[in-house]
Formats: sequence, C-alpha cells, structure tokens
Amino acid sequence: MTVLESGAAASGALAPTPSDKFSFGLWTIGWPASDPFGVATRPALDVVEAVERLAKLGAYGLTFHDDDLFPFGSSEAERRRMIDRLDSALSATGLVVPMVTTNLFTQPVFKDGGFTSNDRAVRRFALRKVLRNLDLAMELGAETFVLWGGREGSEYDSAKDVQAAFERYREALDLLCQYVTDQGSGLRFAIEPKPNEPRGDILLPTVGHALAFIETLAHPEMVGVNPETGHEQMAGLNFMHGISQALYSGKLFHIDLNGQRGIKFDQDLVFGHGDLANAFALVDLLEHGGPDGGPAYTGPRHFDYKPSRTEDSAGVWASAAANMRMYLLLRERAAAFRADPAVVEAMTQAKVADLRTPTLDPGETYADLLADRSAYEDFDADSYFGAKGFGFVALNQLALDHLMGAR
Amino acid sequence: MTVLESGAAASGALAPTPSDKFSFGLWTIGWPASDPFGVATRPALDVVEAVERLAKLGAYGLTFHDDDLFPFGSSEAERRRMIDRLDSALSATGLVVPMVTTNLFTQPVFKDGGFTSNDRAVRRFALRKVLRNLDLAMELGAETFVLWGGREGSEYDSAKDVQAAFERYREALDLLCQYVTDQGSGLRFAIEPKPNEPRGDILLPTVGHALAFIETLAHPEMVGVNPETGHEQMAGLNFMHGISQALYSGKLFHIDLNGQRGIKFDQDLVFGHGDLANAFALVDLLEHGGPDGGPAYTGPRHFDYKPSRTEDSAGVWASAAANMRMYLLLRERAAAFRADPAVVEAMTQAKVADLRTPTLDPGETYADLLADRSAYEDFDADSYFGAKGFGFVALNQLALDHLMGAR
Amino acid sequence: MTVLESGAAASGALAPTPSDKFSFGLWTIGWPASDPFGVATRPALDVVEAVERLAKLGAYGLTFHDDDLFPFGSSEAERRRMIDRLDSALSATGLVVPMVTTNLFTQPVFKDGGFTSNDRAVRRFALRKVLRNLDLAMELGAETFVLWGGREGSEYDSAKDVQAAFERYREALDLLCQYVTDQGSGLRFAIEPKPNEPRGDILLPTVGHALAFIETLAHPEMVGVNPETGHEQMAGLNFMHGISQALYSGKLFHIDLNGQRGIKFDQDLVFGHGDLANAFALVDLLEHGGPDGGPAYTGPRHFDYKPSRTEDSAGVWASAAANMRMYLLLRERAAAFRADPAVVEAMTQAKVADLRTPTLDPGETYADLLADRSAYEDFDADSYFGAKGFGFVALNQLALDHLMGAR
Amino acid sequence: MTVLESGAAASGALAPTPSDKFSFGLWTIGWPASDPFGVATRPALDVVEAVERLAKLGAYGLTFHDDDLFPFGSSEAERRRMIDRLDSALSATGLVVPMVTTNLFTQPVFKDGGFTSNDRAVRRFALRKVLRNLDLAMELGAETFVLWGGREGSEYDSAKDVQAAFERYREALDLLCQYVTDQGSGLRFAIEPKPNEPRGDILLPTVGHALAFIETLAHPEMVGVNPETGHEQMAGLNFMHGISQALYSGKLFHIDLNGQRGIKFDQDLVFGHGDLANAFALVDLLEHGGPDGGPAYTGPRHFDYKPSRTEDSAGVWASAAANMRMYLLLRERAAAFRADPAVVEAMTQAKVADLRTPTLDPGETYADLLADRSAYEDFDADSYFGAKGFGFVALNQLALDHLMGAR
Repeated sequence: MTVLESGAAASGALAPTPSDKFSFGLWTIGWPASDPFGVATRPALDVVEAVERLAKLGAYGLTFHDDDLFPFGSSEAERRRMIDRLDSALSATGLVVPMVTTNLFTQPVFKDGGFTSNDRAVRRFALRKVLRNLDLAMELGAETFVLWGGREGSEYDSAKDVQAAFERYREALDLLCQYVTDQGSGLRFAIEPKPNEPRGDILLPTVGHALAFIETLAHPEMVGVNPETGHEQMAGLNFMHGISQALYSGKLFHIDLNGQRGIKFDQDLVFGHGDLANAFALVDLLEHGGPDGGPAYTGPRHFDYKPSRTEDSAGVWASAAANMRMYLLLRERAAAFRADPAVVEAMTQAKVADLRTPTLDPGETYADLLADRSAYEDFDADSYFGAKGFGFVALNQLALDHLMGAR
Repeated sequence: MTVLESGAAASGALAPTPSDKFSFGLWTIGWPASDPFGVATRPALDVVEAVERLAKLGAYGLTFHDDDLFPFGSSEAERRRMIDRLDSALSATGLVVPMVTTNLFTQPVFKDGGFTSNDRAVRRFALRKVLRNLDLAMELGAETFVLWGGREGSEYDSAKDVQAAFERYREALDLLCQYVTDQGSGLRFAIEPKPNEPRGDILLPTVGHALAFIETLAHPEMVGVNPETGHEQMAGLNFMHGISQALYSGKLFHIDLNGQRGIKFDQDLVFGHGDLANAFALVDLLEHGGPDGGPAYTGPRHFDYKPSRTEDSAGVWASAAANMRMYLLLRERAAAFRADPAVVEAMTQAKVADLRTPTLDPGETYADLLADRSAYEDFDADSYFGAKGFGFVALNQLALDHLMGAR
Repeated sequence: MTVLESGAAASGALAPTPSDKFSFGLWTIGWPASDPFGVATRPALDVVEAVERLAKLGAYGLTFHDDDLFPFGSSEAERRRMIDRLDSALSATGLVVPMVTTNLFTQPVFKDGGFTSNDRAVRRFALRKVLRNLDLAMELGAETFVLWGGREGSEYDSAKDVQAAFERYREALDLLCQYVTDQGSGLRFAIEPKPNEPRGDILLPTVGHALAFIETLAHPEMVGVNPETGHEQMAGLNFMHGISQALYSGKLFHIDLNGQRGIKFDQDLVFGHGDLANAFALVDLLEHGGPDGGPAYTGPRHFDYKPSRTEDSAGVWASAAANMRMYLLLRERAAAFRADPAVVEAMTQAKVADLRTPTLDPGETYADLLADRSAYEDFDADSYFGAKGFGFVALNQLALDHLMGAR
Repeated sequence: MTVLESGAAASGALAPTPSDKFSFGLWTIGWPASDPFGVATRPALDVVEAVERLAKLGAYGLTFHDDDLFPFGSSEAERRRMIDRLDSALSATGLVVPMVTTNLFTQPVFKDGGFTSNDRAVRRFALRKVLRNLDLAMELGAETFVLWGGREGSEYDSAKDVQAAFERYREALDLLCQYVTDQGSGLRFAIEPKPNEPRGDILLPTVGHALAFIETLAHPEMVGVNPETGHEQMAGLNFMHGISQALYSGKLFHIDLNGQRGIKFDQDLVFGHGDLANAFALVDLLEHGGPDGGPAYTGPRHFDYKPSRTEDSAGVWASAAANMRMYLLLRERAAAFRADPAVVEAMTQAKVADLRTPTLDPGETYADLLADRSAYEDFDADSYFGAKGFGFVALNQLALDHLMGAR
C-alpha cells in the first residue's frame, strides 16, 4: 500500500458505506485536468472503471452530464451502448444514479448560453437536448435533475437583456416541469447557482437569486436548488448560511460539496480542503440542524470537485477517498460538539436556542406588544453597555476545539 | 465661486430639479466622518440646514433613521421638537420625505441584531422601536419604509441558528405588515441587503436572498427590496443584474445609489465614482429598461453615500451635487446610446432584442417542439464554430464610446 | 463595412500608428477560445495573418511564447520554418518583436511549475527551454524577455517549501542573466506577477512581491517587472498604484494592458473594458507622470487580452482595434484633463503637487526639525476639524467629467 | 468558573508561559468595540488592569500606540503619569514592552495621512509625533518600532501623486533611521502593510510592496516588515507565502497574528478563527521552517485582534486566552505532523525537500547544462502525462488529519 492509499485508508466509523449516501460526478474523477493555461495531464477515465472504483471506496452513487457519458453528437447506437455499459456496471456494483444533468456549456453552439442564449435557435436546441436527457434520467431512476446554467450570463452589460433572459429561463423551466409531470415522474429539478466563470457574470449567481427565481415559476414545488460550496464562497458568502436559507425555504433538493480557498477562480478542491471551519458548521447543520436535532437533509452528499492537475491516477482515487474521509471526520466531530456539556452551557449563555422562541407570546398581537411597557418604556437599553455579553468567541473556541479533536 | 462649487455647478439638462426625484439620507450629508480607525473630522449637521442646502441643490427628498433626527433615548418632547423643525423646513422648501427607516444597529442593545438577536427582550424592543417609527413615517407621508438589518447576522457559525433567525425575521415582518395594513396606510417595506460589515456575515446578503425571503412572508405584496450599489458589489455581483432581477420580480420598491471600488469594506462613494461602466448600464436600465423602452423604475433616485473623510463642509455639498451630476450625465449618455443607429445595428447583430421573443412559437407545446426536426435532428450545431459571432465586444465598445462622449 | 468594423474604425488622433507602440501577443488574437468549461469556438490563427492584420490596424509589434509559434516538441526544421515565416511577415509589414517569452505552464511536465517545480529534472528542462528561447529573442532583436511563472506555486500549503522555491527561482534568474550578459546582449528580463490561477496561490503574486524578489538577485539591474492590469486587480489592488511603485523603483520594463471586472477569474478583457476610471488614471500616469509632466514610460503598450469566446474572426479584429481605441481615447482625455484650468485649481486646493516638496527644508536635519516649534508645539492640530478639506471628491468629479468628455 | 473561563482554561502544554513570547496590543483587549455602524459597547480599559490580566493569562508582552496610553494632546505631566503607571505594572508583573508604535491615523489632522499627507505641515507634525514616541520606545527597551501607515493612501486616483508619496515615505524613514542610529539604539523598524481600509487604497498594500520599498531606503538593514494575517488575506493572498517571502528576504522583524474570513472589511478575529488550515501552515512554518527544522522566527507572537463587539469584559479575556490556546494547539499539531512517518513518506513522494537541492550541480555552469543531453534532448517530457503525480492531495489530507487530531 503506497502512502497515497494509506492516506485514504479508513476503518470503523471513518469507512464510507453506501448508507452515508456519498455520490460523485463522473466529470470529477474523470476530469483529464486541462485548465485555462494547460492541456490535460491525465487520460480519459472509462465509466465502468469509475463505477467499480467508487463502489470499492464505499460510495453510493454516480452522477453525470449527457456529454460525460457519450460524446456530444453521438449516434443513437453509440449513446445506447454507453448507457448499457453504465447500466451493467451499476447492476454489478449496486451503485445508483441519484442525479443526472445536461451539459449546455461546453460546445461552441452554447457560447452565449442555452436557455437564455440571444439566439433563439440555440434556445430551442438546448430545450431538446435537455428533454432528451430527462428521458435518460427517468430511465435510470434519478430523483433529481440538476440545472447549472454556467453559460447563461454575459460579460458586457449592454449585451444581455437580463429581464428577458429571466423570462426565457422561466419559459424553459415551465416546459420541463410540464414534461416531467406528464410523464408521471417524480423527478425534481435543482438549480445550481454560480456567480461567474466561465461568464463574466452568470444569471442566478447565488442560492438566494435561484430561490427567488423559483418562486416565479409555474411549478415552484418541483424546483429547488443544488448549492455548491465553492460557488457561494466565490461571492464571499457563508455557505452554511446559504444552505440554511435553502432549508428554511424547503428547497435543498441536492448539494454539491467541495473546497474553495477564497474569492478567486473556481477551485473545486476536496471537501474540507478549503474553509475548514465553515465545512464543520455545514456538516453540523446537515446532520443536526433539523427541528429535532436530527438531520436537516437526507439526500446524497454529492462531491463536485476536481482532483488537482498535479495528480496521477493514484492521486485521483486518493482525492476521491479524501472527500468522504473529511465528511465523516467532520460528522464525528460535530456529534461530539453537540454532546459536550461545556458546549451546551456556552450555547445557553449565547442564547442560541432562544432564537427558536417566538418574539411574541402565544396569541400576542401588536396591540398587546404596544401595551407591554416592559418591552419599551421600562426596558433598560443601557444595561447592554459593558455587560450582557454573548460569549460568542468562547463558543467558537469550543467549536474549534472539537473540530481539532482537542476536547 | 470656489473650484469646489464650480465643479458641482450645473445648468441646462445637467441642473437637477425635483422632477428628477433625487433624494438623500440625512445620515449621508450629515456623516461626521468617523470610521473604524478615526474620530470625526466634521461637526454635526443640523437637519434644517440639510433640508435647505439640498433644496437649493435641486434635490427632491430627504430620508432618515429615527436616531438621525432625534438621539436614541430622546424624550417625547425632544423627539417632537425635532420632528416639528423638520416639518417646517420641508414646508418652507417643498422637499418631501419619500422614505423613512429605523436604526437597529448603532446602540449596544443591538450588538447581536434587532429582529433576530438571540436575546428575546431585544427582539421585542426592536419591534417597538420600529412600530414607533412607522407612525412617524406615516405621519410624514413616506411611501417606503426601508429595513436594513445590518446587525442581523453573525461572526461565528455556531453562534446563530440561521433557520430560526429567518423564522424571527418573518415573524417581525408579518407583524409590521399587519400593523401598517390596519392603519389603512399604503406604506410599503423595502429590505436592504448587504453581505457583511458590520457583522462577519449578514443575513439576506444579496438582492436574491432578500427576494427569496419575501416570498415566505404573510404579505409578500407589501415587501420589496432596496438594493444598494456598493452592497451588491461587495459580493462581486453585477448591480445591474441584481436590479434586473428585482424588476423581473416586481420588487424594486426603492434604490440606493452610490459607488464602490471592488470587494472591500463598504466605501459609500459618490454614485459613478466606483464602477463607472456598470453605473452607465444601471442608469440605462432604469431609464430605458421598461417594456416600451421607457423608465423601468419611477421612484426616488436615492443616494446613500458618504462624503469622504478628507472633505470639509464645502466638500460635503460638492459631493452631494456630484451624485446628481453623475446620474444626469449618465442619463444623457444612455439616451444618446439608445438613439445611435450604429448601436441599433450592433444590437441587432448581437440579437439582444431577440431574447424578448419566446423560445416556443405561439401555442407550441413540448410535443410540437419534439416533433420539430429543425430544432434538433437537422440543427447544425457545428455551424457555431468559427462563425455566428455575437459582436458583443464591438457593442460594448460602442457603449463605452457613448459613456465617454466619444460619438 | 459591417457594424463591427465601423465600431473599430478610427481616423485622426484616434487612428493607431506604429509610433503609438501598440503591441499584441500572438496568443491573444490567436486564442481559440477554449476555457475551463468549454472547447474552442474558433480555429487556429496563422502567424502570418496575425502579423498582416495587426499591421493593417496600425499596431507596432507582435510578441509570442515559443509554443505559440511552433508547437511544443517541434523538430528543429519545423521550428526554423515557422521562425522564417514570421521573419518574412515582419519584414513585409514593418512590425517588430519587442518582447518574447517562454511557455512553462501548458504541458503536463510543468504541472508543478518550471523553475520551482519540486521535480529537479523539470527545473533543468525548464532552464533549457528558456535558454533556447532566449537565443530566439536575441535573434529577433527583442528588448525584453518576459517571465510569467503561472505554474510556480501551490494549492496546498504543505506541498511547497516556499523559501526553497525562492532560492530556486533566484538560481534560475541568476543563470539566465549570466547567459544574456555573456552573449553581449542588452536583453532585459521582466517578471509578470499574478496572484492565482492556474495555481491556487502563485509565487510573486503582485508587483510588490516581484520587485522585492528582484532585489535578491545577482543582477537586479537586468530584471524588472511586466505588470498586467487584470492580475493586480485580481488581488483587489489599484493598478495605477502598482505601476507607480514600479516606476519609483525604476523597474517598469514592460506592461500588459487589459480589462478585469473585479476579483474573480482572469478575464483578459479589452483594455478599458474593466475598471474604466482606473484605466484613465493609468494612461494619465504613463503619459504625464514623468518628472517633467511628460511620459513616465516609453516602452510598448502591450495588450495581453482575450477576444471573448462569443466572437468570431470579425469580432477578434474588432476587439484588437478596441484596445487601441480605448488607449487613444483615454490619452486624449488625459491631455484635456491636465490642460483644464479648473483641474489645475482643484489640484492646487488638493495640494497634489505639494507632495513633491520634501518634508524637510533644504539642509534641515532632524535636530532642526526638533527645534522647530511651529512643527509641533505650536502646531494647531485641531484646526483640521471641520476645515482644511482637500476637495478630493470635486477633483475626482473633474476627472470623471474629462473621462466622460463632459467638459 | 464560568463557561467562558473554562473555555479559556488550559494546563500542561496548552498553558501559555512567557517563554512562548505571546504579546498583545493595548488597543486590542482595550478596544471599546465601536465600529462604522455602532458606538462602543464596552468601557475603556485601564492599562494597569490590562498588564495584570495579561500577566495572569501567561502573556509575555504588551505593545501600544502613544495615543493608547495617553490621549492625543496630553500634557507632558499627564503623559509621564501614564508612562509611570505602565512602568510600575510592568515591574510588578514581569511583562515587557517588545514593540511600540505611533498613531498617525485617528485624528482629523491625519485625514490624508501622516508621512505622505499632501499637506506638508502635517508631514512635519507626523515626523515629530513619531520622533517623540521613538524616545519612549527606547526608554522602555522595545526592540521593534512598528509603522502602520493606514492613512497613507487615497480614494481617488488623481488625488495622490503616488511616486511622490514614496519619495516622502522614504524621506521620513531615512530620517527616523538616522535618529535611532545617532541615539546608539538597536531599535529596528517594521512596516505593517494593508491593502485598504480606512483608505480606499493604502500605499504598501502587501508584504511584497513593503519589502520592495525597504530596498530603496538609506538604511534598509534597519527596516523590516510586520505582516498581519488578516491584512494579507484582505487581498486574497496566502499569509504563509507572504511570511515565507519575508523570511527569504531576512525581513520578518515582527508579526501580527489574527483571523480573517475572506476578502472583506478588516475583521481582526482571534488567531485561527479565520482560515484555520492556513494558520496551521503558518505555525508549522514559524516553528519548523528554519534551515535545521527549528524555528524560522524567534520574536514575539503578537496578537493584533479585536474581541468581538458582542462580548463583555469576561468575553474580552476569554478571547485573549483563545488566541494563545489556538497558537499552542496548532504548535502541538504541527509537531506531530512533522514527526509522523506517513507524512515523511508523503513528503518524499511529493519531492518537497528536493526543492532545497540546487537545480545545477555543484560547479555546473550554463554551458555544462547546455551540454547535458539528459536535461533536454533526451528528456522525456511526455512521461509526465498520466504519471509522475505528486500526491499533493494525499499530503494535504495528512496535514488536515493532524490539524484535526485525527491521527
């Protein structure tokens, strides 16, 4: 066993199993490692090997874009041949395909986007490409269909009528929802926001923008979000906060986990290899943020990352394992954090749980509140100067102590 | 006339008039110029002088927080005295108060926020403070009540139950909407997003997040957004795009114009003194982005800026004038841009207007689309390689030519 | 003439001529428009066509990496054939090659860098590749040899001994300087900084870091910097400030002009299509920032940009022309700005020129200063409160007025 | 013992002692917690209490600005009284003053800076203020005098002649160095860079810019840098990389440790409460980055942070303790990381130590290198495709395992 493999080795609570629901994009482990300034450093990965290696590592699912599995422009026969190969590998390993998505960004035809290209013929072609892949998603039993509109956007402000773009985006989503409904499928859509790259500005740049857009659709109940760690962090936003708002809106249909080190190009590092403290808070939220302290999200833990361009094949699989190890380590630490009496005490001082208590008493109206002199006339606002501290720093230190295994 | 004043002087189309609907916050021109590393460099500004100077410069409105007009903790008599002084000045000058807002961020009592403080007593006090100021807003005939929740947030991920915070935020908004409705007032609320500062992460960090949150309220029709140029740009987002989404959602109730030079602390520069090209696109949108090419927004053009700390009183008024001059200059340039035949031609090549055309033909269903071989089977995707360019760069150059007065 | 061409057309003062010293990288106009999420949208551009088109547009020079001209791994014959074709085209058009550079980033061998790869064999290969291309640079009469170490860096902090990397970087530069000196050539080196992309963190991330590193070399006088607009702005830094420091240090050996819209991936937009106000200040500095008010830099105005991926061949050439038009427009505006008496008056109030006056009187020592009661004991620091404003905002408004052609 | 105190409690290897050389700024624990949008939430802290509390917590030193200890404009008697009170407290506790600095940013007189204010009278006053405080620094036996030029900069590009500003900066530093030399003192200067805030752009924005500027001084050997974690991270730069370059240049005279969560306003969080992984790498560098694997820096570990505005007095001291706890925890983890055989093996695969080996053989010249066919003609560049991976991801996972106490 080389050091790469030992680095990835795991046992006991840190050994991934399908019940952990870890899934990977075929384009992640299969990324040949070309970037804006470099050609590929690795050969293509066959889908069968991908499935077999993931299964061996303890993963639960594989996801893909149409063009990942069969090249753009494939004949029907070639397409079917590749689907069949995937199918066989899934059957042999028990891996599932919980999510499918369509590539509307790689080819020249999509240079100004798909659903919102200024070119109407492209918009029609994009719809057809997605409809075709919806059939495949339903065939494979996927629960979620992700839509990342990475080319829907602009570099130049005069070049895009943004309000019109939203109209077209909505038209597209409404048609797709109708199609799925008519097929009797329970497939749901999840929009994946991103602020920029490859476009200068991408439409629906954050979780918030996507959630707002969804409310304008004909079938908002069929559409949620698929937030990605790094995408939110590219806008300097707190990923845990974004996920919390998605949960508050009942729209966390899927999630993309990875790592990003600040506001810069999309790094797609291993989960936890970016902002570690925020990753801890995220896992704590997913695992213990439900109303009863149980999981707030039960869907796949999907890794949308890229094995660094410096790695060869052994490094690819070590990095795949590292994603799962990071999640499991953080899950373990979050459980200990929640169970620590000192944390409970610090949470009490910080009044964290008090925020669950409504501000009004049961049945209280604004008239009652206005009549409550203790709320205003007799309230001692000055008493907050030099006193009534929340102890947030000490609480955070306890969180970091647990994250670092130091308690 | 000193150079400062001549720099601000204007005549003809560039002389502001009340019909331009320019308004200023009392806290902007009145900012004494203290910052995190420095004490005030200017004395306080009296509200009567503020009203008189703004009127003389051609402004339309004044806006304020309660604590701007009468100090926190003022007696009822002192409060009334200041309101009366404001009233008299308004009457004397014709200035109006189109918007009012409440300060829930300056005092120690709000150190963990107002509506979403972990401390329930603070939440109740905050509601009372806002209710009181709603009365004043209605008394003064304001149309919009802005809510900037600058202290609603956290520095540490474990310190705030973000989902609970949204529940409390909603509880507060629902109560306020009910109160206003019961008063028979047409006053509307506008949420002002900001990503961070003074909190490490602020809830509702962008226009998108605020729009999404509004849809969860009991009276979403009463609540819109008040986006601020610099706040969106602090998250690296395109302000024109954000405003477009607010318009698409019918939620642009108010707007805060200023300048910001990139992702950093909140600069609150003069409008146009930050990202000039984006300011041009914004004014073009506001003035010509409606369905008929007319204004997409008819409310106040509100400047929420800070006269730089290096300026004395003369500099304060020169900077106030500069905001209006920038808007009027950009309005003039946007009109010329729209009228230029070369721009019309470039827009045609770029297919900008085609995005208003639905992707489906009238009455077309997905079944029809699936049957249209020209949309997919016979569509020549390869024809987009090396051809069918959009000419976006040339269009942008025309926009910059107009911005620079070079055509 | 299409609108694209008319958009780029120019006459009079805005018609570029070789005396303007505009140069372009072969990799810029020749970029086939592949990006991290998309394949090429344009075919390759032949070097002869590149030279002819640039000459026709009024450019002065062409620059290139070895691998731009002849593919990596070319035989000596193929290499020579391409050099000869370039030579002929240069002779035919009068274009020159003022700068040459070497590609140490595209191929898999450089996946961990060139001069600072952890792999010593790669470091040796990199040196040889550069030495070979130095010969070509000298053969073609280039004045400057640029070194962009885009792969010199890391994603993971433990993976790179950064101090050792600087030792190797220095070893490489010292060897190259010795080689050039021994050839009797006057060729100078210019380091091009960049903060990140393609590496997570790149060594020598800003102009400052490169200037500091140069001072540690054996021949610092032979090495300067080649700052790129967008690279500095990717770190949120003011490009004009960075260029000023390079000039202060006597190290502005070359410059890369382009456009960037904030902290995000490397956009390589047309010059002036990013932060327009900063571009104005930059041109003003280059053209009027010398001690006598004349040019502070007389070298090539080199455009290192990418024609947007949405453009076809016509768009490529329109974008090339747009770079030169923007520079010439800004040069024109800067000249008018400097000549405006109102600007002179505002500059006087702002005491801009006073900063050229030494703080000490001629011959004054610290002892004299300590004895000058007017400097401290009798100095009225309080007089700066509410007075002695600098009028910086009014001055900036005048700058924007000139930038917008509004005076 | 409350939870705040227990959170901060420590024993054994995690109990700070003076030999750890932890120091704090008087302005950090004494920060009354006013910010751009809020007034103070805490009363002033007396210097004697500060010294006593720090000593009790195990700290080594206290640092201060003149204005922290005695208000701006104090009489000589008041100044001396405060110095004597400090002196007594130091004697009583054994705490030392390893660093002193001067405030050139808070008062209105410095609104355009100190050494580089456009106003020459201000520049002279600034020099006098610093000279006076140099005397105090020498009196107290400080080793380092820090210069943070937070007001040296501009918001508007035309408002500052940046090259002239560098001339004045240099003039100031040269005078100060001469003064210290003439006093026979060994006091050294350390420049503290920051990219922005409170100025829109600050001169010497990063470690690199400061290092480069130092080389232009008359006495470069007397001047180094005092990098601050958050300041570098506000420009998106890797702090460990910046410290490495300062060490490479022999200029790490002092260091400011704190926490920052990305590119935004200056947060001044507790050390390690920002980018935790980078903090681990930093401590590893400081403790094990010397040529022999021992400490690369032996000076004070100085915390320049702010106790969050939500905290009361108990929270202030808990946060002070948290800084030291984080450093000690990270030091412990870094030691284990270095000692782990699996890490040694992964480092070997990643060839980290090979970068210490010169690229040339002993005595090898470029002529020898050119003659070495194995370096180029026979070098198999293609062998790096799909092979020769560095295993950087697995190495990083090992680092995170150690950071998290998971091995």
